[in-house]
Amino acid sequence: MTIGVCYFPEHWPRERWERDVDQMASAGLEYVRMGEFSWGRIEPERGQFGFEWLDEAIELIGDRGMEVVLCTPTATPPKWLVDERPEILQEDLDGTMREFGSRRHYCFNSAAYREETDRIVTRMAERYADNPHVAGWQLDNEYGCHGTVRCYCDDCANAFREWLGDRYDDIGALNEKWGTTFWSQQYGDFEAIDPPGPTPDEHHPSRLLEYYRFASDSVVEYNRLQAEILRDIDDDWFLTHNFMGHFPTLDAYDVADDLDLVSWDSYPTGFVQDRRSDDPTVAELRAGDPDQIGLDHDIYRGALDRPFWVMEQQPGDINWPPHAPQPADGAMRLWAHHAVAHGGDAVMYFRWRRCQEGQEQYHAGLRKQGGSPDRGYADASAAAEELFDLDPVDAPVALLHSYENLWATNIQPHSPDFDYWNHSGTYYRALRRRGVQVDAVPPERSLDQYAAVVAPALYLLDDALAARLEEYVESGGQLLVGARSGEKDPHNKLVDAQPGPLADLVGATVDQHESLPEQVPTRVTFDGEEYDFRTWAEWLDADDATIRGRYASGPGDQQPAIVDAERGEGRVAYCGVWPERELADAVVGEVLDRAGVASHPPLPDGVRIAERDGHVWVTNFSDSPVSVDAPTDATWVIGDANVEAFDVGVVTGSVGDVTVTQR
Amino acid sequence: MTIGVCYFPEHWPRERWERDVDQMASAGLEYVRMGEFSWGRIEPERGQFGFEWLDEAIELIGDRGMEVVLCTPTATPPKWLVDERPEILQEDLDGTMREFGSRRHYCFNSAAYREETDRIVTRMAERYADNPHVAGWQLDNEYGCHGTVRCYCDDCANAFREWLGDRYDDIGALNEKWGTTFWSQQYGDFEAIDPPGPTPDEHHPSRLLEYYRFASDSVVEYNRLQAEILRDIDDDWFLTHNFMGHFPTLDAYDVADDLDLVSWDSYPTGFVQDRRSDDPTVAELRAGDPDQIGLDHDIYRGALDRPFWVMEQQPGDINWPPHAPQPADGAMRLWAHHAVAHGGDAVMYFRWRRCQEGQEQYHAGLRKQGGSPDRGYADASAAAEELFDLDPVDAPVALLHSYENLWATNIQPHSPDFDYWNHSGTYYRALRRRGVQVDAVPPERSLDQYAAVVAPALYLLDDALAARLEEYVESGGQLLVGARSGEKDPHNKLVDAQPGPLADLVGATVDQHESLPEQVPTRVTFDGEEYDFRTWAEWLDADDATIRGRYASGPGDQQPAIVDAERGEGRVAYCGVWPERELADAVVGEVLDRAGVASHPPLPDGVRIAERDGHVWVTNFSDSPVSVDAPTDATWVIGDANVEAFDVGVVTGSVGDVTVTQR
Amino acid sequence: MTIGVCYFPEHWPRERWERDVDQMASAGLEYVRMGEFSWGRIEPERGQFGFEWLDEAIELIGDRGMEVVLCTPTATPPKWLVDERPEILQEDLDGTMREFGSRRHYCFNSAAYREETDRIVTRMAERYADNPHVAGWQLDNEYGCHGTVRCYCDDCANAFREWLGDRYDDIGALNEKWGTTFWSQQYGDFEAIDPPGPTPDEHHPSRLLEYYRFASDSVVEYNRLQAEILRDIDDDWFLTHNFMGHFPTLDAYDVADDLDLVSWDSYPTGFVQDRRSDDPTVAELRAGDPDQIGLDHDIYRGALDRPFWVMEQQPGDINWPPHAPQPADGAMRLWAHHAVAHGGDAVMYFRWRRCQEGQEQYHAGLRKQGGSPDRGYADASAAAEELFDLDPVDAPVALLHSYENLWATNIQPHSPDFDYWNHSGTYYRALRRRGVQVDAVPPERSLDQYAAVVAPALYLLDDALAARLEEYVESGGQLLVGARSGEKDPHNKLVDAQPGPLADLVGATVDQHESLPEQVPTRVTFDGEEYDFRTWAEWLDADDATIRGRYASGPGDQQPAIVDAERGEGRVAYCGVWPERELADAVVGEVLDRAGVASHPPLPDGVRIAERDGHVWVTNFSDSPVSVDAPTDATWVIGDANVEAFDVGVVTGSVGDVTVTQR
Ligand SMILES: [Zn+2]
Ligand SMILES: [Zn+2]
Ligand SMILES: [Zn+2]
Repeated sequence: MTIGVCYFPEHWPRERWERDVDQMASAGLEYVRMGEFSWGRIEPERGQFGFEWLDEAIELIGDRGMEVVLCTPTATPPKWLVDERPEILQEDLDGTMREFGSRRHYCFNSAAYREETDRIVTRMAERYADNPHVAGWQLDNEYGCHGTVRCYCDDCANAFREWLGDRYDDIGALNEKWGTTFWSQQYGDFEAIDPPGPTPDEHHPSRLLEYYRFASDSVVEYNRLQAEILRDIDDDWFLTHNFMGHFPTLDAYDVADDLDLVSWDSYPTGFVQDRRSDDPTVAELRAGDPDQIGLDHDIYRGALDRPFWVMEQQPGDINWPPHAPQPADGAMRLWAHHAVAHGGDAVMYFRWRRCQEGQEQYHAGLRKQGGSPDRGYADASAAAEELFDLDPVDAPVALLHSYENLWATNIQPHSPDFDYWNHSGTYYRALRRRGVQVDAVPPERSLDQYAAVVAPALYLLDDALAARLEEYVESGGQLLVGARSGEKDPHNKLVDAQPGPLADLVGATVDQHESLPEQVPTRVTFDGEEYDFRTWAEWLDADDATIRGRYASGPGDQQPAIVDAERGEGRVAYCGVWPERELADAVVGEVLDRAGVASHPPLPDGVRIAERDGHVWVTNFSDSPVSVDAPTDATWVIGDANVEAFDVGVVTGSVGDVTVTQR
Repeated sequence: MTIGVCYFPEHWPRERWERDVDQMASAGLEYVRMGEFSWGRIEPERGQFGFEWLDEAIELIGDRGMEVVLCTPTATPPKWLVDERPEILQEDLDGTMREFGSRRHYCFNSAAYREETDRIVTRMAERYADNPHVAGWQLDNEYGCHGTVRCYCDDCANAFREWLGDRYDDIGALNEKWGTTFWSQQYGDFEAIDPPGPTPDEHHPSRLLEYYRFASDSVVEYNRLQAEILRDIDDDWFLTHNFMGHFPTLDAYDVADDLDLVSWDSYPTGFVQDRRSDDPTVAELRAGDPDQIGLDHDIYRGALDRPFWVMEQQPGDINWPPHAPQPADGAMRLWAHHAVAHGGDAVMYFRWRRCQEGQEQYHAGLRKQGGSPDRGYADASAAAEELFDLDPVDAPVALLHSYENLWATNIQPHSPDFDYWNHSGTYYRALRRRGVQVDAVPPERSLDQYAAVVAPALYLLDDALAARLEEYVESGGQLLVGARSGEKDPHNKLVDAQPGPLADLVGATVDQHESLPEQVPTRVTFDGEEYDFRTWAEWLDADDATIRGRYASGPGDQQPAIVDAERGEGRVAYCGVWPERELADAVVGEVLDRAGVASHPPLPDGVRIAERDGHVWVTNFSDSPVSVDAPTDATWVIGDANVEAFDVGVVTGSVGDVTVTQR
Repeated sequence: MTIGVCYFPEHWPRERWERDVDQMASAGLEYVRMGEFSWGRIEPERGQFGFEWLDEAIELIGDRGMEVVLCTPTATPPKWLVDERPEILQEDLDGTMREFGSRRHYCFNSAAYREETDRIVTRMAERYADNPHVAGWQLDNEYGCHGTVRCYCDDCANAFREWLGDRYDDIGALNEKWGTTFWSQQYGDFEAIDPPGPTPDEHHPSRLLEYYRFASDSVVEYNRLQAEILRDIDDDWFLTHNFMGHFPTLDAYDVADDLDLVSWDSYPTGFVQDRRSDDPTVAELRAGDPDQIGLDHDIYRGALDRPFWVMEQQPGDINWPPHAPQPADGAMRLWAHHAVAHGGDAVMYFRWRRCQEGQEQYHAGLRKQGGSPDRGYADASAAAEELFDLDPVDAPVALLHSYENLWATNIQPHSPDFDYWNHSGTYYRALRRRGVQVDAVPPERSLDQYAAVVAPALYLLDDALAARLEEYVESGGQLLVGARSGEKDPHNKLVDAQPGPLADLVGATVDQHESLPEQVPTRVTFDGEEYDFRTWAEWLDADDATIRGRYASGPGDQQPAIVDAERGEGRVAYCGVWPERELADAVVGEVLDRAGVASHPPLPDGVRIAERDGHVWVTNFSDSPVSVDAPTDATWVIGDANVEAFDVGVVTGSVGDVTVTQR
C-alpha cells in the first residue's frame, strides 16, 4: 500500500528540484508520476529533442529510493505540430474545429496523429528503456476528457464506415439489424453512412449507438497502439491509464484489456457538485460522497479484477467544479484509507505543488506554490505512515455495469430524470449501506464467484447473456434484476416483450412502462409495506413468478411491480420501479440475506464500513462521530472505537463482527 | 363518425398483415392511413420502383371493407437522393446544414426537390388512380415539424427576394413601408435583402415578419404543387394534410385553402407538458387539457368551416414529451368523443402497432409490438361502436385567430411572459368554461353568423379589418377586443395611437402600456369587483367609451383599464389587461349574456360540455365524477347522468338545458 | 446644468420639424444630439452625399437658441458598403459572420472600415466645420454594445499578433511571462498565436487576458482615429462618446483619454433587471437602484475627473430589458437631479419622440409617436427649470475600479457567484449608504487628494502599484483592501503568496481561499460582533497585522479573516471575505471615521444623499417618504424637508449637517 504524488519539474526552476524530492521522500512517498503534457518541453521543435531535464528529474527521484511512473505526452500535441498537420484536430458535430489552446485537441482516428504518436512514444520509450527508476507508464492522460471521445471529422467518418463494414456482412444486414425502413433511412452502401451530424429531429437510435461504440473503440485502438510500442521496447514496465470518475463515453473495461494496472483520478468534492442530480450536503461538500467515489473504485478494481491505483487524488481545494470549498480537516487522509478499503494499492496525490501558470492555478497541491506545506501534506504523510500491506478485496456481490447500456439509455432515456449512473447508484448505495463489498463488473464477466448479483438496468440483452444469468441462478445464485432490463436487442431495437430473453427466468413480462415527473404520486408496496419510488414504473404480467409488490397509485394501481421466482438452487427478483432509498434497502437486504452474505443494518449517511484481508475499515464521511462495537479480541490497527467526523478506524475482523452507531 | 388507424405494413413481415387487418376490421375501424415516410421502400434506388407491397396492403384493407388514406412520402427523401442532390437540404440561420438522419431535411424552395416531388407524387398517384379502396390523400406529413418551416439556404434567399419583388412596387416602397431609415437599414435593390442571419443585435421587425410570411407561403406553394398533381390525376380523391397542435410557424388557414379536408395530430398528454407555460396537474398528465386540445379542434374545424379529422390520435403512452405517463383508463375513448363533440368526423389512432425500430420505439400503438392488444385498443373499439352520424357543429361565437399576429408578437413580445397562444387561451378557456362552441377563424372570415366575436390580440390591423369589425358591431354584434390590438400596421410599424383604426369603434385609445414581472402587484376592477391580471397593462384614455374597470395598483392606479361602448345595434368592449381566470370569466360572461348565447355557469376544471346536432357531450377530463341534471325528456345516448372521471356522457338537448355539478 | 434631448429628424416628415424644435425650446432644452445611425441617409450610395436635411435640422435648432451635438454615423455602415466590402464584418469565435441587419456589425481592426471611417468622418466634419450651432461631437455610438468589442476575424488575428509583438521583447519572453510550459502551450513565434477560438477545455488565462486587453485597445485606437480627424478639422468642438452602464469589455478610462467630455447612457429600470444578480424590488422596477446608477456616474466622472453628461437618459418605458414597467411618477425628474448630485452637468433624454419603425418601437420618448407629450415630458421640463449652475463634485473617497481586474476575475472567477461588479458594488453601496461622494478611478490615478481609498479586488498587482499604495498609507491615508487582491501578477500568473507585493503593507498573507455555495453557513466576526459573508473566504496568516475578525463556521473556524495595521501616518485594513451588507457597513464605517470623513449613519434602502458645491441632494428612490432634519439656517433650494417617494430635495449645507429619517 503506497502513497505517491504527481510532479511537474518542468514548471519549476532547476534549483528547486532537490528540495522538492527531498520533501517527497521525507513524507514517505514512494512513487512520482511525471511527463504527461510535456511534449512541448521534450520536443520544442520537430526533431529537436530535449530529454535532459527529465533524465535529471528521474535520477533525483531514484536517488532517494522512489520510483517513477512516466507518462506519454500525447494528450497535448504542441502548436508547431498542430500548425504543420492541422488535420489532427477534432471536429464538433457541426463541423467546428476543436482548436489549439487547451488539451485533448487531437483525433483518435487521425492517421497523421497516429504517426506522430508512434514517433514520440517510441523515442521516449527508447530513452528510458532499462532505466532502473522507471517502474511503468501511464498512457496519455484522461482519454476523452472535455467531451473528446466523439469526433466528427473526415478521418472519423471513414473509420466509422470501415468499422461498420467489419461488423456487418453487407449493407443489407445493417439495414435489417438497425431497422432502417423507419422514416426511409435505408443505406445503399457503407459509404453512405456519415457520423451523426446536425439533423432537424433526433437520430436513429441504432445508428447513434453504433457511433458511440465506434468512438469508444477508436480510443481502445489508439491506446493499444501506445501499449504495443511500450511493451515492445521494455516489457518489464507496467502499463496503466488514468481513467475518470463516472465517465460516460468510454468503455473503461475495453481499454483496460490492454493494460496491466487500472488507475483513476478521484476528486470527491468536485464530483458531488457536478456528477449528481441532487444538491450536495455540507458534509459532502467537505469530503465527498463515499458511494459515489466507491462505485468508481469498484468499477476500476473490477476492470482487471486486480487492485487499482488512484493516480490523481484530490489534495485540497480544486479548480474545476462550480465551487471550491476547503475539504474538511483530515479528508485527504480519509480518501486514501477509503481507497485502500475498496481495494486500492496506491494513492497518488495530484499535485506536488500548486501551479502558478495556466489553467490550473486554482488547484491545490501538497505544497503551496511558494513551497511551504499545504493542507494535504500532513494528511498524505499520515496516510503513508499508517498504510500496511494487504491482500486484494474479496467481494461477495457483483453489480453489473455496462457502458453500452449507459449509452443506449442516454440515447432514449424516455425521461429527463432517467440517468444510468444515478439508477445504478441507488442499488450500489443500498449494498454499501450494508457494508458489503461489491465488484462492479461488465455483464460478460463470469459470475460463479458471487453469492449475489445485482443488475440494475440490463437494457440491451442477447440470448447468450440471458442463458448465463439463468445458469447462474439455477446453480444457486441470487439475482436481482432492475427496471429497464431486456428492453432492447444489442442493435437497440425493441424486443417483442420486455425483459426479452430474460422473461422465462424472471417469470414475468412487462405489460406497460411509464415515466413520471415529480408531481405525480409514486407509491408501491413490497412485502406488505408501502414505499416511494421515482421516475420509472413497469406494470408487470406475472407468469409463474410470485408477486411481491404492487402499485399503490395511478392508473396502474394494484398492478404487479416487483416479483420473484425460485429457479433451481437460486432465486431471481425483478424490481419494475426505480426504488427510493428505503425500498432499495428492503429489496437489496432480502437478496443479501437469501445469499447468506454477512451485512450490517443500513448504515447512517456518510458512514461506511468495508472489509479487506481480515480488517474492517470504518470511514466516516459525515460530520458526526460514530462508535464502533467490535469483538473484545479485535485489534484496532488504526484509530479506535470512537471514529470522529471525517476520520477513519481500522479493526481486525470481518463485517459481520462490528456494529456502528452514531454518537 | 368514423374511427381509423395509421398503419405501416412495411415495418412488419408480410405474413403478419392478414392478422393485422382482420383485427382492424373487427375493431370497427373504417379508414387506414399508410405510406408517409415510405419513399425508401417505394423507390430504393433512383427509378427502381417497388409498389407491390403497397398494392397488396391496400387490397387486403379494401377486401375487409375499409378504405385507405394514402400519403405522399415526401417528408423523408431517402439517402440516395440526398447524396445525389445535396442542395435539397435545409440550412440553419448560421449556415449549418440540416443533414440526413431524421426527417423533414428538405427545403420547400429547393427547385431540385420540387422536381423530385413532382416525379414521386406523379408516379404514386398514377399507380393508385381509380383504385377503389383509396379514398383520399394526405399530402406530405406535418409540414414544418422540428422547426423546418424557416430555412436559410440560397434557394430560400432567392425565393425571398422574388417574393418581396412581387409584393412591393419597388425597393423604395419597401424601404418606406418597413421604415429602414432606422439604424441605416435602407436597401438599394431587392437583391440586397438576405434571409435574416446572425447579427449582433435583434433584427428589424418588418424584415423578420416578412421572412416569416414568406416561409409560411413557401410551404403553401409546395403543398399546392402536390395538390395540383393529385387533382389532375384523379379528382375524386379528397386531399388533406395532418397539421400539428398549437403550431407556431405555418399559417394553417392558408395551406387549408388548397385542401378538401383539414386534419390534425392530437397528443393530449404531450401537449400539456411542452406547449403550456405552467406545470400540468396530475389529471392533465393522464388525459390532457380539454381547452388546449379544443382550441386546436376549433382552429382546424374553422379552417374550412367543415368537419375535421384527427389524423393521429394518441393511442397510449408516447415517446416525445419530457415524461411519458400512462393515460388514464378510458382516456383514449374520451379523446375520440371530445373530438366529435368539437365537430370532428373521424378519429384515426396513431399507430396500429408499436414500432420496434428507429426513433419512435417508445410510442404506443393500439396493439403492442408483439401483436397483442395495448391499452388503447379497447378504447378505440368502444368509440367505434358508440359513434353515430351527426351534423356539423354550429358555433355562436368566433374567436379571431391569426398567425401573422402570432408571428409579430413573437418578434416583439415586449415581455418574456407574453405568449400569443396563452393569451388567446385565456379567452378561449373562459368561453369553454361556459360550454359555448367556438369557431377559431382568421380575422378575414365573414362574421355575420356569430352572435359574439372575441379578438384577443388583434395586433396588426388595417382599415379594412377595422371597417368590417365596425360593421359587425353596428349590425348588432357583440365584440370583445383584447389587449395589444391595433398596435401595429400590417408592416409591423407602430401606429400613431393604439388601437389604431379601431380607436373610433372602441371609443378609447391607449395612453400607456407596460409589461410587468410576477413580483409586481397587478390588480384591476371590473364592474365594481377587484380582480387579478397578469403580464400586460394598458392605461386607457376613454373618449366616448364607458369606463368599466380601472387599475388598482401601481403608478397607473385609477387609470381606465376596461371600457365598452354601444355602437348601432351592438356593443364593443376593450380589455386592456391580460385577465386572470376570474376576470376573463366575468368579461366573457357579460359578452355572452348580451349576445343572448345560451351558456353554463363556469364549469369545474377539466369538465367541459359541448353541443352538436341536438346532443350535449359531457366530457370529464378531471379525476372527480360529476352529475348532470338534464330535462326529464332528454335521452342519454352514451352513458348516463353520472359521468365518472375520464368518462363521457351524451344526452339529447342543448347546452342551456343541462347543469353539471361535481359529486 | 443643462437638459437636452436626442432627436432623429430623419424619422419624421419635414413638415413636423418646426413643431418638434419649438416644443423642445419651450421645454427649456439646451442641447440636441443628432446623426448617429444616419449614414444610410447621409450617403445613400457611395459618393452620393445628401447633407441638406441635416443642415436644415441644425439650422432650425440653432435658430431657437439651442446647440447641436453631432454624431459620427459609424455604428451603422449601410448595406451597400457591407456588400461592397464584406471584410468589414465581425466574426464570432466559431467563425460565424456577424451580418447586416442590426447595428455594430463592423470590425474595429478592419483596414477597410478604417478607410471608410476616415472618408465619412472627414466629409461630415468638413461639412460642419465652423457651423455656429454645432458644439461638439459624439464619436460613433456605444462602442462594443451587443458583445462587439471582441472579434475573431482575420484582421483581428493579425492585429493581435502585431500587438503582442509590440509588447514582448521576443516570443521567449511571452512564453516565460505567460507560463506556456503548462499543457505544452509554447509558441514558436508570434505568428503562431491565434485569437482564442473554440477549444475542448478552457483557454490559457494569460492568453485570454491579453486578447481582452488587445480587443479593448482596438476600440481605443479606432476612437482615436476619429478624434484626430475631428480635431484636425475644427478644434473648437468638444469630443465625447456615450459609454454604457456596468459595461464589461471596454476600458472606458483608456477611451476617455482621447476625449474632452465623458458621457454615458443611463436606463435605471432596465439595469436593475439585467445587470444585477438578485431580483429587483418593486420600487427598483419603478425607479432603479441609485447605487447601481451612482457607480456608473462616478466611474464616468472619474474617467477625466471632470463633470460628465448623461447622453441618453431613460425617458419612460423602454424596449430592451425583460419587462417594461412604467417608471414611477416623477422618476424621470429624479434621475436628472441624481445625475447632477453625482457631478453631471447635462442630462440628455433619449429620445424626443417614440419611433414608429425598426427595432426600438417599444422605447418611449419625451413625446409620443403622434406628437403629444409623453410621461417624461413634464419631468424633463421641470428638471430643466429647477437646475442651476454648480461647481464640480469634490469626493473625499476613491474606489479603485479596474477593467483589467474585471476581465481577469471573469476569466477565472473560481465560483459561479463571484462577479467583479457585484463585489465592488458591496463596498460602493456601503459608502453611499453613508452619503459619501466617491470617485471611481483606475488604480493608476494619483490618490493624494483622498482621505480614504477602497480597493475591492485588486486582483492583478505589480510592485509599482503596491509601492504607491504603501506611500499613500504611510502619508496618512486610510486604505481598505478587499478579498482577491494581489492574487496574480499583471500577466495573470499566480503570485507566490497573496496579496503578493502588498503583503508587507497589509501585514498578513492568505493561507487558504475557498469559494462557497449558498447552502454552506458563512459566518465571521468583526470587532466582537458576528456577521454573514458570502461566496469567498480567505484564511489569513497575520504577520504584524492586528486580527480584527475570525471565521465562525466551517473548517476555517477561528482562522483570521479581517486584519488591519497602522503604517506611518495611516492605516490599512484587509477584508478577506465578500461581506454581506451589515459587515460592509461596519468595515467601511470604521474606515470613514478614522479618515475623518463626514458621513451619515447607514441610510434606508433607496434613499441617498450627496453633496455638491455647498448643497445636499436628498434623492428618494424608495416608495416611502422621508423627513430631513437640516440646520435652521439652511435653505431648501428644491423641495422641502418632506421628501416624498420618488421625489428630490436640495438644501444648502453639507452631508454632516443633515439627518434623514423614514416617515
Ligand atoms: Zn476525428
Ligand atoms: Zn431553403
Ligand atoms: Zn475583427
